Amino acid sequence: MRHVGVLIIGGGPAGISAAIWCKRLGIDCLLLEEQPQLGGQLFNIFNEIIDYPGMRTKNGIEMQREMVKHFVEMDCLHEVNTKVLFIDERSKTVKVKKKAKEQEICYTYLILATGSSQRKLGVPGEQQMIDRGEVYSASADGERLKGKTVAIIGGGDRAFEGAHLLSSKAREVYLIHRSTRFKAREQYVERVISNPCIKVMTDTEVTAIHGDRHITSIDLESKNKEYKNLLVDAVLIRLGVAPNVDLIKGKVATAQNGLIVTDDVHQSSNPFIYAIGDACTTPLFSSISFSAGQGTIVAKHISSLLTES
Amino acid sequence: MRHVGVLIIGGGPAGISAAIWCKRLGIDCLLLEEQPQLGGQLFNIFNEIIDYPGMRTKNGIEMQREMVKHFVEMDCLHEVNTKVLFIDERSKTVKVKKKAKEQEICYTYLILATGSSQRKLGVPGEQQMIDRGEVYSASADGERLKGKTVAIIGGGDRAFEGAHLLSSKAREVYLIHRSTRFKAREQYVERVISNPCIKVMTDTEVTAIHGDRHITSIDLESKNKEYKNLLVDAVLIRLGVAPNVDLIKGKVATAQNGLIVTDDVHQSSNPFIYAIGDACTTPLFSSISFSAGQGTIVAKHISSLLTES
Repeated sequence: MRHVGVLIIGGGPAGISAAIWCKRLGIDCLLLEEQPQLGGQLFNIFNEIIDYPGMRTKNGIEMQREMVKHFVEMDCLHEVNTKVLFIDERSKTVKVKKKAKEQEICYTYLILATGSSQRKLGVPGEQQMIDRGEVYSASADGERLKGKTVAIIGGGDRAFEGAHLLSSKAREVYLIHRSTRFKAREQYVERVISNPCIKVMTDTEVTAIHGDRHITSIDLESKNKEYKNLLVDAVLIRLGVAPNVDLIKGKVATAQNGLIVTDDVHQSSNPFIYAIGDACTTPLFSSISFSAGQGTIVAKHISSLLTES
Repeated sequence: MRHVGVLIIGGGPAGISAAIWCKRLGIDCLLLEEQPQLGGQLFNIFNEIIDYPGMRTKNGIEMQREMVKHFVEMDCLHEVNTKVLFIDERSKTVKVKKKAKEQEICYTYLILATGSSQRKLGVPGEQQMIDRGEVYSASADGERLKGKTVAIIGGGDRAFEGAHLLSSKAREVYLIHRSTRFKAREQYVERVISNPCIKVMTDTEVTAIHGDRHITSIDLESKNKEYKNLLVDAVLIRLGVAPNVDLIKGKVATAQNGLIVTDDVHQSSNPFIYAIGDACTTPLFSSISFSAGQGTIVAKHISSLLTES
C-alpha cells in the first residue's frame, strides 16, 4: 500500500499552501483533488482579487494559474480526478477512486482542505447566470451595481449585510426570503427593515431566473400561491455556505454549524487529522490569504512533530 | 486631533495585509512605519522566497516591492519615518514623532504589527556579513552550504535544529554556545551531541567575524580565557528573536516569551487593541503567509464590529 507522510484532501488555496509548505519543509506529501484541476473555490471568483497581499489578479482563474504554477514548480505531488471515498482514521488509510480504479493510501498525518460549497437555489437559469459570471460581492461590487435593480436571496447575515451595503448604490434592492423568520442578527434585520430603499419580501421563493446574455427578471412564488415576475438586473444568492465535511462526519469533532473544530495549530480532535480553509473557517473569515496562512501553520506544526520524533 | 478608525503600527507583511484589508472593507485606516520604507523584516530575507503561495520572489526586497506596490495601488494611507513614542490606551491616543514634529493621533482600534528583532552578537564583522547577504536558512539553504564549514551560534531549538539539518550537507558543523546550559529541548540536544559530524563548543563566545568579500574565520574566546581563530565559510546566528513590544508592555497581556497574547481573532486583552505578525507569533510559526492571513482576520473582525455598531 502506498504510504505518505502527509496526505492533503482538497486542492484549493488552503491545500495548495499546505503542499507548498510541506515541500518547503522536506515533508513527503501528496495532495488529492476530486476535480480535473486544482483551485477549488478560486473558480467561483469572477471579480478582481484585490485582497491577497502582494498579488492582484483580475479574477479567480488568474489566481488559480499563479497558485498552480507555484505548486508545479515546487514539484508538489498530486492527483486530480481523484475522489476520496472513505477515511479510516483507525488504520490511517483512505480509499480513493481515480476513474474506475480504487486504491488505498496510508498516511501519517491527514490534512482536510475540503472547502465549502455555496448553497444554491436549484432553479432554472441559476447555473447559466453563474456560468456567465454574473456573480457579485455586495462589499466589492458596489460600483458595478450602481443604479441597478438587485435581488438578494436569503435570510442570514450575509443577505442582510449585502442588502444594507447595496442600498446606497443600487437603484432598488429587494431582499427575498422564503420564510418570515430570519437567521440574521437582529440589528442587521432592523437596519434593513427600516431602510426605505430596501423592499423585503418574505414567504417568497424564487422559482426561475430569466435572461440570455444577462439577467432580466426572476419568477417568484409566495406561500399563498401568488405568482409574480420581477424585473431585476442582478441576483445575489446568499443562502449560506456549508463546509464539505461529509467524509469526516463523526470521526472528528464538528461544531453546530458543521465546521470542523480545530485548535490554534489547526489540529482536529484527532491528533493525526488537521483541517484548514473553509472546512473549519466561519464564512465571515473565509479568504484566500487566511487559508494560505493556515496551510503554512499546519505544515510547520507537522514538521515540528516529525522533527521531534 | 487627527482621528482614524484603525491605526496600524508597523509596516511589515502583517501590517501591510491589515491595511489592504481595511481598505478593501471600507475602513478608515492609517499605517505608521518607523523606517523610511515599508517592508519590515522582508529586508532581512536574502534567499529566494518560495513559500508565499502563488508568488515566488528572488528575495525579500522583491517581495517588499510587490507588497508595497499593492499597498500603494490600493491608496492605503501611511506615514513612514514615523516613530510611535507612546500609546495611551485609556484615551485611545498615540503620540508619534516624524522628524522633529510630534503629533497625537486618536484611534478607534489599534493594530500592533511591530514585528520582532533578531538578537545579534554585537561583534565586529557581524553587520558587514549581514549587509553582504551572508544570511542562511538551515532548512532552505542546505544546497548552498553543501561541503562548507559552518558555525552555528546559539543554544536554543533553532541552533540545534539548524546544526542537525546541516550536518548531512555541510563538511563540518560547529555549534558554539556561551554557556554549558542549553535552552533547546532535550531530544534536540541529544541528537546533536551524539552526531559525530557536529562539534559542540560550550562556554565559548564569538568575539569577531572576519572576511572581506565573504566570511573566512571567526575569533573565539572561551570562559577560561583561551583564544582561538576558527576557519569557517558561514555563520548562522541563532540567538533567537524578541518581539518588539516595548511600546505596549504592561498595557496588554504578554506571555513569558514576550509575545502579545491574543485570541483567535487576534484581539489582545484590551478589546480595542489587536496584535498580528511576529509581535504575537512564536518564531516557529513566523512566516509571511501566516502574517498576511492574520492581517486579513483582524480587518475582517474589526469590520464586523463596526458594522454591528
